[in-house]
Amino acid sequence: MVSANQAAVNLLDTTSVTLVGVRPASEVVSFPSSNHLLHAGPPLALDEIPGPMRGALVGALVFEDVAGTLAEAEHLLDSGSVSISPCHAAGGVGAMAGVVTRTMPVVVVEASTGARAFSPLNEGLGRALRFGCNADDVLARLRWIRDLAAPVLDAAIRATPRIDLTELQAEGLRRGDECHNRNIATTCALILRLAPAIARIAPSGDVAATVIEYAAANPHFFLPFSMAAAKAIGDAAANISGSSVVTGISANGRRLAIRVSGTGDRWFAAPAPLGEPRLFEGYTRDDAQATMGDSFATEAVGLGAFALNAAPAIISFVGGDAATSRRLVEEMRSICVSESSRFRVPFDDFRGTPLGIDVMRVAATGVAPIVNNGIAHREAGRGQVGAGITRLPVEPFVEAAAAINSERRP
Amino acid sequence: MVSANQAAVNLLDTTSVTLVGVRPASEVVSFPSSNHLLHAGPPLALDEIPGPMRGALVGALVFEDVAGTLAEAEHLLDSGSVSISPCHAAGGVGAMAGVVTRTMPVVVVEASTGARAFSPLNEGLGRALRFGCNADDVLARLRWIRDLAAPVLDAAIRATPRIDLTELQAEGLRRGDECHNRNIATTCALILRLAPAIARIAPSGDVAATVIEYAAANPHFFLPFSMAAAKAIGDAAANISGSSVVTGISANGRRLAIRVSGTGDRWFAAPAPLGEPRLFEGYTRDDAQATMGDSFATEAVGLGAFALNAAPAIISFVGGDAATSRRLVEEMRSICVSESSRFRVPFDDFRGTPLGIDVMRVAATGVAPIVNNGIAHREAGRGQVGAGITRLPVEPFVEAAAAINSERRP
Repeated sequence: MVSANQAAVNLLDTTSVTLVGVRPASEVVSFPSSNHLLHAGPPLALDEIPGPMRGALVGALVFEDVAGTLAEAEHLLDSGSVSISPCHAAGGVGAMAGVVTRTMPVVVVEASTGARAFSPLNEGLGRALRFGCNADDVLARLRWIRDLAAPVLDAAIRATPRIDLTELQAEGLRRGDECHNRNIATTCALILRLAPAIARIAPSGDVAATVIEYAAANPHFFLPFSMAAAKAIGDAAANISGSSVVTGISANGRRLAIRVSGTGDRWFAAPAPLGEPRLFEGYTRDDAQATMGDSFATEAVGLGAFALNAAPAIISFVGGDAATSRRLVEEMRSICVSESSRFRVPFDDFRGTPLGIDVMRVAATGVAPIVNNGIAHREAGRGQVGAGITRLPVEPFVEAAAAINSERRP
Repeated sequence: MVSANQAAVNLLDTTSVTLVGVRPASEVVSFPSSNHLLHAGPPLALDEIPGPMRGALVGALVFEDVAGTLAEAEHLLDSGSVSISPCHAAGGVGAMAGVVTRTMPVVVVEASTGARAFSPLNEGLGRALRFGCNADDVLARLRWIRDLAAPVLDAAIRATPRIDLTELQAEGLRRGDECHNRNIATTCALILRLAPAIARIAPSGDVAATVIEYAAANPHFFLPFSMAAAKAIGDAAANISGSSVVTGISANGRRLAIRVSGTGDRWFAAPAPLGEPRLFEGYTRDDAQATMGDSFATEAVGLGAFALNAAPAIISFVGGDAATSRRLVEEMRSICVSESSRFRVPFDDFRGTPLGIDVMRVAATGVAPIVNNGIAHREAGRGQVGAGITRLPVEPFVEAAAAINSERRP
C-alpha cells in the first residue's frame, strides 16, 4: 500500500507537462467582467493591495483599454469598480505581481493528468509590469508582445513536435539553471526548439527575427513556461486525503501562503517575509516590498532554491558559495518526503533534488523551506530593487500540519 | 619584468577571438594542387596513414570530385599522386581525422592579435567523415552542408554583431560545457545568436528553418568554433623565446605531439596513446584507433579536460564522479603556470581553470596532461567506437623541456 504522501510525491515526480501554446488569457480563464483582473498569491482585499501590485493593476487597466489613463485607472480601482482574484484560483500562476488581463498572452501547458495550467508571457528585463511599472514604454512593450510576438510563438509551438517542459527543466539543471531565478540556458534551449517553426510560419523573415530577438534578449523568457509546468505538477498532486505534502507556495506582498495536498484549495498564510535580499545599488530595505509572486510553485516541485546547487550563479549573486548551496539543499532534504528521479544535479553526482515538502517535517524540525525571489520596490511604478534567497515563515506549515493531524484523526 | 612563461600565459589568458565567417577552405589555405588535402595532427607520411584517416581522405577525394569513386580515390592515394599536410601548418585545426579539402566549409576566426585560424564545420553525429566514414550518405550530407548550410551561416555571421568566441566559451563553462567533448549549451547559445540573421537573410523561411535544424541537431556544432578559437589563442602565445608553455597538442592516430612557445613550430612527439576509453557496446580495444585529432588545442588553453569539473556529464560518461573531476583538475594545476581569469568553473566557486601547461613542470613531476577525446574504429569507414579521458605520454614534454633548457643555456 502506498501512503498518501508517497502517492503525492509520486505524482510530483512523474507528472510530465506538455507545452500547448501561447493564448489570450480569456481563452483559458472565465473573466466575470472586463473589470476583473488576476493577481499573484493568496486572496487579497482591494484595500490591502501592495504598491507594486497596485502599479501593475493600474497599468493593466490601461493596457486592456478599461481605463484611458493611469489616473482614470487609479480612480476605477479606488472606487471599487474593479474586482480581483488569484491566478491560482483560475488554474494559473504569475510572477511577482502576477497581474493577468483578458487579452494578455499566457503560456498554456497540459499535464499528463490532462489538467491545464497557464502563466503570462514574461515581458523581459528592466521596467516591467510584474514589478509594478506601468509607464508608456512598459505598456507599449506589452502590446507588441500581445499583438505580434505571442501569435507567432503560439503558431510555432503548434507547428513544433511535442515539447516536454519537464525534460527541458531536467536538462536545464544540467546547464546551470535552477529554472526559477536562473533560466538562461533553458531559455536558449526552448527558443532554439521553436526557431525553425518561427522561421517557417512568421509572415516575413524580419518578423521571425524580431520575435527570436525579443525572446533571446530575455534571460527569464523560460520562467512562465517553468512556472506553468510547476503549477500543473503541483495541482496533479493535490487533493490526496491525508497527505501533508505541499502542492503550492505563493505570496501577494502581504501574505505568504501554502497549499497542502490533503487540505485541497485551503491556503495557510502568514505575513510575507522580506528576508535578507541583495538590493541593487542605491536601495535600502525600506524600499523593498515583502515577498510577492507565484513563482515559488517551482520550489514546491524540486526546482528553484531546492536545486540551488545546480546554479552557482544564483548563490554567488547573493554572496554565498558552492558549499552554502550544497548545505541549503541538504537542509531541504530533511523536510522532504523524497527526492526527484528526473530533476538531478550534476555536481551532486546527479542526485535528485529534494521533493515533496512535508508540513509535518517542517513543523517537527522547525526548518522552513527556502525560496529564490525577486524583490519589487514597495511603491507603484518603481520596479525591481533586488533579489534574494528567502527563508519562509514556519507558521503556515505548522498550521497546515495541525489541520492535517485533525483531519487524520477519526 | 615579465618572465617568458608569464608573457605566454598572459597571451593565453587575454587573447580574444572574433568569429569571422564560414568560408571555403581555399579562401584561407593555399592548396598546392587539387590533389592536396589537410589532416589532423603532426606531419605524417602517406604510408603511415591510419585506417580512419585513410577513410576520410578517400571520401574527401570523392567529395572534391578528384576521384569518381572510393576505389579510384584509394588508387590515387596508393599511387602517391595525392599529397597531405597538417592543418596546423596551414593555420587550422580539424577534429579527429581533420581532413580538409579546397571546397570544404571552414569556420574562420580572428584573434585580437590579428591572426586568423580555421576549423572545418562539424558534420553532425553518427556516420561522419571525421571518424573515417565515407559512404554515399556521409558525402551527401557534407555536400548539403557545403552548398546550402555554409553560405547561409556565413552570411548570418557577417550580419550579426561581433561574436566573441571566448565569451561564449566562458559562458559555456557556466552552462555545464567544457567546450571540447561537451558543447551542447554553447551550441544552443551560438545558434540562437545567429538565428535572427539566418531568418532575415535565408532565401526562404524553409531554408532558414532547415539550416537551424541541422545546426541544432548536432550537440557538437560548436566544436569547430571552440577549436578554431583555441588554435588562435595558442598561436598568439607561440614563439616567445625561452617560454616552456605548451601552445598546441595534436595527434594523427600514430603520434601525439606538442608544440611549445619557446621552440616555435617544432613538434615533440611520442606514439599516440589509446588510454582507457569507454567503448560503445560491441567494441573492444582491438577495434580502436589510437588518439587522433587537433581538438586537444582546447586543453592547451584551459578548456576540455582542464575544465572537466565544469561538465560532470563528461566524467560520468566514462564512469567517474564529481570528486574525480575535481581531483583531475587540481592535478592539472600542478603542471600549469597559472589559472584562467576568464574560463571559470561555477562549482569550483568560479575559480579559473588551470592555464599554461609548463613542460618543465611536467618533466619535473612526471604528471602528464589529460585530454578528452573521441575514439574512431581503426578501420576505414567504420566510424566512432567510443570516447574517453586520456593521459598523454610524458615523453614529448620531457623532450621539449630538454630543448628549452639547452636553448636557455648560453
